[in-house]
Amino acid sequence: MKIGVDYVKVRRSERLIDMTQYLLDHPHDLIPLTFFAARYGSAKSSISEDLAIVKKTFKERGTGLLETIPGAAGGVVFTPSITDEEAKEYIESLAERLSEEDRLLPGGYVYLSDMLGQPDLLRKVGRIIAAQYLDKKVDAVMTVATKGVPIAQAVSYYLNAPFVIVRRDSKITEGSTVSVNYVSGSSERIEKMELSKRSLKRGSRVLIVDDFMKGGGTVNGMKSLIEEFEAELVGITVFAESKFKGERAIDDYNSLLFVQDVDTSTKTITVVPGNCFDKE
Amino acid sequence: MKIGVDYVKVRRSERLIDMTQYLLDHPHDLIPLTFFAARYGSAKSSISEDLAIVKKTFKERGTGLLETIPGAAGGVVFTPSITDEEAKEYIESLAERLSEEDRLLPGGYVYLSDMLGQPDLLRKVGRIIAAQYLDKKVDAVMTVATKGVPIAQAVSYYLNAPFVIVRRDSKITEGSTVSVNYVSGSSERIEKMELSKRSLKRGSRVLIVDDFMKGGGTVNGMKSLIEEFEAELVGITVFAESKFKGERAIDDYNSLLFVQDVDTSTKTITVVPGNCFDKE
Repeated sequence: MKIGVDYVKVRRSERLIDMTQYLLDHPHDLIPLTFFAARYGSAKSSISEDLAIVKKTFKERGTGLLETIPGAAGGVVFTPSITDEEAKEYIESLAERLSEEDRLLPGGYVYLSDMLGQPDLLRKVGRIIAAQYLDKKVDAVMTVATKGVPIAQAVSYYLNAPFVIVRRDSKITEGSTVSVNYVSGSSERIEKMELSKRSLKRGSRVLIVDDFMKGGGTVNGMKSLIEEFEAELVGITVFAESKFKGERAIDDYNSLLFVQDVDTSTKTITVVPGNCFDKE
Repeated sequence: MKIGVDYVKVRRSERLIDMTQYLLDHPHDLIPLTFFAARYGSAKSSISEDLAIVKKTFKERGTGLLETIPGAAGGVVFTPSITDEEAKEYIESLAERLSEEDRLLPGGYVYLSDMLGQPDLLRKVGRIIAAQYLDKKVDAVMTVATKGVPIAQAVSYYLNAPFVIVRRDSKITEGSTVSVNYVSGSSERIEKMELSKRSLKRGSRVLIVDDFMKGGGTVNGMKSLIEEFEAELVGITVFAESKFKGERAIDDYNSLLFVQDVDTSTKTITVVPGNCFDKE
């Protein structure tokens, strides 16, 4: 009798651990209860109970939302999220890190590349950006090479949608491309960007992300590309924006960080949280 | 009495779910037992029992290794891994997908970009590559812009080591750089690649990854860069390699996929698993 009880207990524990792992690895996928039932050789009723515990814990810890879709074609869908407190606290810590004076580069640029190569930062930033689009269907995340790529991939992991990379230089390995011209905001030059024809389906709902925005010219170029592909813009989020004198090409966007001031004479950078928490 | 029992049971369940989530999110980090004890308001002995269950489940399911480091400065370290069966099966499915004839581009190139933008593929490939270096300390993952970046980031997530991006074109936002010249294998041209000086510390142990290798010239360039930074090469893994006539600049490397033959007249691509499973 005692052995029986222990056995059941252990089995549930193991199911919960493996289920958690599986759900985190398959965000936004509809997973039928029968899948878990077969995976653990358990009754569907036990799986339902397990999922109720997972759902409660995920909600309490701000891991995300576990939704149950009833019916024969039903199952569960895990949507990663983050609590507002955790997101705000993290963005504030990033603002502090970005304000370090040794990040100041000649010309008033801010050195970001090291941060955009750190897996813990990218995981968190990906979760924060993805959480802004929870209620919107996103089919693809778009960015421009090279520095936007880590942000796009980070977001893509949590939305479980592919990312596509717009390039400023054509490569033979991309096949046919569609290109647009755009005005580079900072230098007022006309430049060209292109995207492989196969990489985006007509009608796709696209989220634009990038590492840094000044005048918004690059983001505007991506907007034109989305039109060329007859796709739909869902939203725009940049990791950091800086103050811009003159009219910005883009007005409706989210930024995680705002580089308020760069003073090359005193070697100070002032970074504060961006507009992404203003709108709620 | 019954309520008490239920309470204890629910608490353990919730701990296991949240612990799993936390460990997966913090691979290779040493997490003190006191951290979990405080997080859940539990005794260290209960946490130890929880971790033993997590360890057993992670091992059985091939999720990875959970190691306990004893002593006052001890804790647990989670190392993500993958079973050989799961890895082989996945690579075989990739080989099949890559052999689709509509991937053939003019000049005999194979279209890869869509695959390298898919989060499920990148998660799996990241786990497979990281698992090859479980017993080696890796301080940084290095790749070259643009198409190597998704692979580097995927691996970086599982090794919990930052990735650095070597570029063919200098950017003001990189600060000072170190550059090397290298022979591009396919075209025999001399080209230049550079890496931001701040991005790699002297003595770092570096893993090189890239999306595609033909002659190995690009990878060889990265090897030279590692020398310039007085860093150390841990290993080289490419997502796909192709047959190369002539002497390859690199001989010690792992490949996940091998593009055996590309026949533009019959429009067939033959892709098989690479050498990464040969060496065991």
